[in-house]
Amino acid sequence: MDIKLNQEPDMKKPLILVTNDDGIAARGIKTLIDVAKQLGDVIVVAPDSPQSGQGHAITLEQPLRLYKVDLFEGVEAYECSGTPVDCVKLAKNVLLKDRELNLCVSGINHGSNAAINILYSGTLSAAMEASLEGVPSIGFSFLNYSPRADFSACTGFAKALMKYVLQHGMSKGNLWNVNIPDLPADEIKGIKVCRQADARWVEEFVEATDPRGQKYYWLTGRFVNEDQAENTDIWALENGYISLVPSKHDLTNYEALDELQSLEILTS
Amino acid sequence: MDIKLNQEPDMKKPLILVTNDDGIAARGIKTLIDVAKQLGDVIVVAPDSPQSGQGHAITLEQPLRLYKVDLFEGVEAYECSGTPVDCVKLAKNVLLKDRELNLCVSGINHGSNAAINILYSGTLSAAMEASLEGVPSIGFSFLNYSPRADFSACTGFAKALMKYVLQHGMSKGNLWNVNIPDLPADEIKGIKVCRQADARWVEEFVEATDPRGQKYYWLTGRFVNEDQAENTDIWALENGYISLVPSKHDLTNYEALDELQSLEILTS
Repeated sequence: MDIKLNQEPDMKKPLILVTNDDGIAARGIKTLIDVAKQLGDVIVVAPDSPQSGQGHAITLEQPLRLYKVDLFEGVEAYECSGTPVDCVKLAKNVLLKDRELNLCVSGINHGSNAAINILYSGTLSAAMEASLEGVPSIGFSFLNYSPRADFSACTGFAKALMKYVLQHGMSKGNLWNVNIPDLPADEIKGIKVCRQADARWVEEFVEATDPRGQKYYWLTGRFVNEDQAENTDIWALENGYISLVPSKHDLTNYEALDELQSLEILTS
Repeated sequence: MDIKLNQEPDMKKPLILVTNDDGIAARGIKTLIDVAKQLGDVIVVAPDSPQSGQGHAITLEQPLRLYKVDLFEGVEAYECSGTPVDCVKLAKNVLLKDRELNLCVSGINHGSNAAINILYSGTLSAAMEASLEGVPSIGFSFLNYSPRADFSACTGFAKALMKYVLQHGMSKGNLWNVNIPDLPADEIKGIKVCRQADARWVEEFVEATDPRGQKYYWLTGRFVNEDQAENTDIWALENGYISLVPSKHDLTNYEALDELQSLEILTS
């Protein structure tokens, strides 16, 4: 596998925000920081504890803490008590203020965020928050759930994609959802630009009783994909490709706008 | 204002799930339950405490509690310790199992969920979760933030829209984001089917020191809308209309798919 576009970005040293949802001590973010450092100045703001499944949650009812940490050589880094989206808001509005941010990268997530998982994922919601703030952003996920996962297959691809965005920008309101199959780098066939598969979770709550005799439910589930099209992220991943889904935060269903004009007859 | 489509739904008694993010004791959900009861059998599963800003968060690291409550006459109702999305998952997978759900309504939220607030809103995320499960769903919000808000202006419109969906269905993967201006019913000009305005929050964190001398940050913000187009939800609301944004959970940016095919040259 030969990564092209390997000239350095033709611009002043860019500023890159790195965040995630697995927490600042996770392996995945360390990998992403190491790549980002090769491309620009890096600031890290990440949750102080795992925040998987936090989606686009923000902290309204509680104060947030933000502490400087000395975890990554030569990199300004902060841990935050809030959600991934809180981290991006604090980075942009408290730490960076008027400094221009050229790219936000989130991850590398320990586990898939393909298909509808973009909605549940704190990793992708952080990237989406950056896109709301007008910052080009990429969420990276690796299809290996182990805290001890070896991310070395991800680095070349992550660097190439980040470089591409630093060189070409990204149109406003967009973000990329990038998932990387759990394969050695030389077995990865390349990058497929594709759509979000129409998959879903079939929930199977575990029902049990706590030590005080009270019933509880614990969320578990089975990921089901009946969308077999070859232009989907799930197909790409199952066939040895990295999936790249260009995504956006405008959720309007434009096709339905015209269909529903008749609803305006409700009014008179 | 004259609401048409006032014949009763031509079907067996439909089953309607009601949820929200302000918590089961909020006034807004009581209003929605009263309307839903006029249209079908109702089941309520709502958070036991306010969950504003929870977005699409789900509870992975903790057990969930689900307790039957006797709050709404003639209606089976449960309070849940989790997020709005957890409530929908529990309703669909634990309580209803194979029973067909014909509609999910969420709200009525105390405050706006127009424009990008669909992403932060637990109310809308609950509706989106139902849409992921194949259930037609509507999130309702009223532009009055008071816990003592008078929702009487909302009821006729909410009923008309729910009836419309029960009669006509909703195409798969869709949900409606409905916001209602804070006006007396007879001053509301009607319903506008529109797109999500490209607005944003300008964050202004309050920075202060806690009793132990530690610095904290508290999220606040100013909603800024530079998108003045007349086909947006913000325009509709500012001009006395109810906004209805047909929305979807497929976040793929289809316009960007073609543009980005060149990225596949990264691979060889």
